[in-house]
Amino acid sequence: MRGTRMDKPVGIIMGSQSDWPTMKEAAAILEELGIGYEARIVSAHRTPDRLWDYGKTAVSRGLRVIIAGAGGAAHLPGMMASKTRVPVIGVPVQTKALSGVDSLYSILQMPKGYPVATMAIGAAGAANAGLMAAGILAISDPALAERLDAWRQALSDSIPQEPRDE
Amino acid sequence: MRGTRMDKPVGIIMGSQSDWPTMKEAAAILEELGIGYEARIVSAHRTPDRLWDYGKTAVSRGLRVIIAGAGGAAHLPGMMASKTRVPVIGVPVQTKALSGVDSLYSILQMPKGYPVATMAIGAAGAANAGLMAAGILAISDPALAERLDAWRQALSDSIPQEPRDE
Amino acid sequence: MRGTRMDKPVGIIMGSQSDWPTMKEAAAILEELGIGYEARIVSAHRTPDRLWDYGKTAVSRGLRVIIAGAGGAAHLPGMMASKTRVPVIGVPVQTKALSGVDSLYSILQMPKGYPVATMAIGAAGAANAGLMAAGILAISDPALAERLDAWRQALSDSIPQEPRDE
Amino acid sequence: MRGTRMDKPVGIIMGSQSDWPTMKEAAAILEELGIGYEARIVSAHRTPDRLWDYGKTAVSRGLRVIIAGAGGAAHLPGMMASKTRVPVIGVPVQTKALSGVDSLYSILQMPKGYPVATMAIGAAGAANAGLMAAGILAISDPALAERLDAWRQALSDSIPQEPRDE
Amino acid sequence: MRGTRMDKPVGIIMGSQSDWPTMKEAAAILEELGIGYEARIVSAHRTPDRLWDYGKTAVSRGLRVIIAGAGGAAHLPGMMASKTRVPVIGVPVQTKALSGVDSLYSILQMPKGYPVATMAIGAAGAANAGLMAAGILAISDPALAERLDAWRQALSDSIPQEPRDE
Amino acid sequence: MRGTRMDKPVGIIMGSQSDWPTMKEAAAILEELGIGYEARIVSAHRTPDRLWDYGKTAVSRGLRVIIAGAGGAAHLPGMMASKTRVPVIGVPVQTKALSGVDSLYSILQMPKGYPVATMAIGAAGAANAGLMAAGILAISDPALAERLDAWRQALSDSIPQEPRDE
Amino acid sequence: MRGTRMDKPVGIIMGSQSDWPTMKEAAAILEELGIGYEARIVSAHRTPDRLWDYGKTAVSRGLRVIIAGAGGAAHLPGMMASKTRVPVIGVPVQTKALSGVDSLYSILQMPKGYPVATMAIGAAGAANAGLMAAGILAISDPALAERLDAWRQALSDSIPQEPRDE
Amino acid sequence: MRGTRMDKPVGIIMGSQSDWPTMKEAAAILEELGIGYEARIVSAHRTPDRLWDYGKTAVSRGLRVIIAGAGGAAHLPGMMASKTRVPVIGVPVQTKALSGVDSLYSILQMPKGYPVATMAIGAAGAANAGLMAAGILAISDPALAERLDAWRQALSDSIPQEPRDE
Repeated sequence: MRGTRMDKPVGIIMGSQSDWPTMKEAAAILEELGIGYEARIVSAHRTPDRLWDYGKTAVSRGLRVIIAGAGGAAHLPGMMASKTRVPVIGVPVQTKALSGVDSLYSILQMPKGYPVATMAIGAAGAANAGLMAAGILAISDPALAERLDAWRQALSDSIPQEPRDE
Repeated sequence: MRGTRMDKPVGIIMGSQSDWPTMKEAAAILEELGIGYEARIVSAHRTPDRLWDYGKTAVSRGLRVIIAGAGGAAHLPGMMASKTRVPVIGVPVQTKALSGVDSLYSILQMPKGYPVATMAIGAAGAANAGLMAAGILAISDPALAERLDAWRQALSDSIPQEPRDE
Repeated sequence: MRGTRMDKPVGIIMGSQSDWPTMKEAAAILEELGIGYEARIVSAHRTPDRLWDYGKTAVSRGLRVIIAGAGGAAHLPGMMASKTRVPVIGVPVQTKALSGVDSLYSILQMPKGYPVATMAIGAAGAANAGLMAAGILAISDPALAERLDAWRQALSDSIPQEPRDE
Repeated sequence: MRGTRMDKPVGIIMGSQSDWPTMKEAAAILEELGIGYEARIVSAHRTPDRLWDYGKTAVSRGLRVIIAGAGGAAHLPGMMASKTRVPVIGVPVQTKALSGVDSLYSILQMPKGYPVATMAIGAAGAANAGLMAAGILAISDPALAERLDAWRQALSDSIPQEPRDE
Repeated sequence: MRGTRMDKPVGIIMGSQSDWPTMKEAAAILEELGIGYEARIVSAHRTPDRLWDYGKTAVSRGLRVIIAGAGGAAHLPGMMASKTRVPVIGVPVQTKALSGVDSLYSILQMPKGYPVATMAIGAAGAANAGLMAAGILAISDPALAERLDAWRQALSDSIPQEPRDE
Repeated sequence: MRGTRMDKPVGIIMGSQSDWPTMKEAAAILEELGIGYEARIVSAHRTPDRLWDYGKTAVSRGLRVIIAGAGGAAHLPGMMASKTRVPVIGVPVQTKALSGVDSLYSILQMPKGYPVATMAIGAAGAANAGLMAAGILAISDPALAERLDAWRQALSDSIPQEPRDE
Repeated sequence: MRGTRMDKPVGIIMGSQSDWPTMKEAAAILEELGIGYEARIVSAHRTPDRLWDYGKTAVSRGLRVIIAGAGGAAHLPGMMASKTRVPVIGVPVQTKALSGVDSLYSILQMPKGYPVATMAIGAAGAANAGLMAAGILAISDPALAERLDAWRQALSDSIPQEPRDE
Repeated sequence: MRGTRMDKPVGIIMGSQSDWPTMKEAAAILEELGIGYEARIVSAHRTPDRLWDYGKTAVSRGLRVIIAGAGGAAHLPGMMASKTRVPVIGVPVQTKALSGVDSLYSILQMPKGYPVATMAIGAAGAANAGLMAAGILAISDPALAERLDAWRQALSDSIPQEPRDE
């Protein structure tokens, strides 16, 4: 593949600015692992044409994985999965009344044909979206695979044997 | 408004053929009340461009109310509400694993800006979508208002005083 | 239609004073869009006769849309839908123990005959109730339709391309 | 109190004919215990005026307990509790999509001022509504208290020591 | 009945001291209505013998209604209903992890034979337990019936016509 | 300990005959593992005194583990845990309206002081109750430990490498 | 990459034979798209060492994506994600009492570090797992990308314009 | 059995340091009752080999009961139950988005063969895990049985007769 295309193989998109405190956990992981990304606000409802364009040009722009976070009636991940074959990882953002179960069901329960790789609700899910993107890219990028293995090993090594009082 | 536009003021759309047994309850009500409608399959995920076109031309085609039914990650009603100001009535179709709570949350929990008038889960909700469309159209259609009043009165009159053993 | 009837085509009713912080979001939208409204406390349980009168006179008083918010065993929207053919938009107010799922089910799950156009739980739902009322009124009010289109366009235009750190 | 008023101290009301298979369990218990009752269909939404009249005349007609069963957006028990001080026992009828949780929340979550004595979902709840009515009437009816004690003792005595294969 | 027995016709029992902030709402209502009561801690699990004795002596001690509040695996109301024919009103106390849905199901879902008159979760439910007790006692106490009617009327009269900004 | 006491170290109790199709899975496991048991119907609500006696004599009768199954407002396991220090294993029986979530919460959410070792809902949970009893007894019974190890090994060995079409 | 490694780049694993009717939907998709796979029963609880070996050798055996289906306390997908960096797609199998919500939560709610790409509950989710695997592999396999695009186009083309009565 | 083995018959394990504030309630109970224990962090996902070793050596190291707490996709208790016949008591740690229902289902819904004795969600459940461990050990330890009886009696004795205002 062309180097330019690899500059930012991951697109992080989210329904609104209010999703960023959650979604930046995905960005942080990608930075830790040296993976280029772009972060965009793409609202399924407020900017549907932006969604359309993003999906239509995803392959040609060299995006290899899309991470999409949204809350409530969270249509962004699924609609993006409808518009492009680039794998879409969905992050259900926690909500006020329904704790993100609304986000979860809206992202998870996709019909046959349009999978969204759904992560846990909230910040841990966003971080894991970054790691899932890394795992996918690592399939054909041995150097990244090594960095990912190291990241995982470091996490494992960081666990103490005994709990400590605080 | 032009008479031709009034021929089919209601559009009934649904995500798939499997939603029709539910959604035809809406059609039945519209027929009972003498309201013209069209019924279309418009899948948010499988035919996103059809959704786009439907939404974009809704006003110009003379649609005054859209009834949208879908199940699971039910994005059709909300995406339609994003594409047109024509009022969208959403019907959550019952699903196998989650009984339609997934459909409900995906339709109901729309962000500020794009309301979907959500009905009860399943066939009763579809029938009520037809009645809600009638109520909306009746605002500026005295003859329809009269028919709707009569329909409501007949329903009320049909209730017996005492339950009967079966 | 007569101008006097159009002065306040929307009635915002709620079960109690404690619903107002939620329901005033509906009022704010109506004001932004230049739609007249009245706001009333009509408790289904504490003032049932007031509910009765409100429903019975809704048509003759020129109400074209009713927005009804309530929490818990939220009977106001559905009972109002029973008493008048004026379209009723229901707003489930968030509650302490059950987060508004009790309000939602009490409003949403209406039997065939008496639809309530249910909105999302809480303040976003109340704002959307105002927008749904606007969409309904805009069907036969081209000037309002234009204002609504502009409101929607402004919302869309307000979305930045990229998230910002705070 | 006058004997005539005691002829039918219990009113069993329900939202529709389809609730009778559940609610007749209440009637059966009342018959077993020799308590007079009337059974009526009183739909909160389809016959609101019937509800009004029933509530308004409950005291004067000599009703001492009202058992009200309904499903979905089950407004009958709570609205009846709003209209009369006669104690209302609510029975949530099981529903198709939401298994009666919608009925339950609509009946249970009443605001301060208007209690509904909510029973278990479905037929066991209806039977218990009959027994609760009996317990209430037994407070001032020693003969009924004796019959109720005997009924309870018989139930207790009917329990075998060991389970049997079937 | 004997005057002494009427001194405290209502027993308010609860599973632990931590339920009192909820249950005192029941006590407050009884005081407002001039109904005598006793308040006791009777833990189903920690003081089962106290529960046994309370239930066994309820009739002879002149208790006419028992209000029982508990949280979590809330066995107190149902076990009390097993031990006495005195009507038991159950109040599900709100809990930390499950918001009182655990309390609710444990109290509500009683098998045929042993009804518990379940109230809403939390403080409103406790207040309503007091009102339900009043409604039951008012059946054979005209003076109380009048006080209850007045209480209800006052509540109704207190509702303003319009919401006010705060 | 005395041999006679070891004859039936496990008591399987259940709230009603209708629980036996579930609970006999526990019995089957105990038989497979050669552990003596008795099976009794002990209804918390219908036979509270039987519950009392069972709990009070559990230690002296030589019971070492009690398996208690119940459905709905399932008070049997928790009340038994209140009456005896013999470890109680609880099995939530599946129910019609709430699928056993009511049983689960009633058994699981015990307050500090009175644990119930809760198993999965339904038949798998009952079988596991038998295995948990075996695991507990195996602590001080090496021969049983060996049989349990063998049972576990056989289960593990029975798993084929590949799925087969049916 | 080496051809031998590409022979079966996808491993479909499941907790038990009873998961195969669901999981074979994933296999069917892979066959339609010409992607090699192996199907194995790997029970997290009954064959933990098999899980260990599968995870440890996944990279060296040339697996590029693992699809893991399980029901109830569904630990297989998450434990596999712990043992290998190969991307794991999780399929929550529908269950009897909890409809697969137990499976879903057990698979979805992974802590930071070990993502599982969770699909919808049941057969649609399994089919989508196959498509997600295809989308991942298509990133570096242009021929497969083309086949996937065609598959998606065919699905889209299969949607009729109007629903038909059956 | 050898005295050394009895020094620490209970192992308290947890998925992460953040579980300790919950799990130390189990430790506190064991200390009150004079039962030796060790506390270890054993993360199913981050330190799977530690989990393996812990399970494999549990019997030989003299562990008689294992208390395992975890949150979210809580695989630790169930995987431990897969690796050893030592009885495993599971504590679902409360979580942010799903309040511990995710933890609960992941721990509770084990398949036939591998029971986990599940406790209530959160701190009360952890304390009860300690008491359940005590109850199990007390079966063959008369001195501990006496201490446990005394602990239970003291808890019972601590309950006042009446609630007090605070």
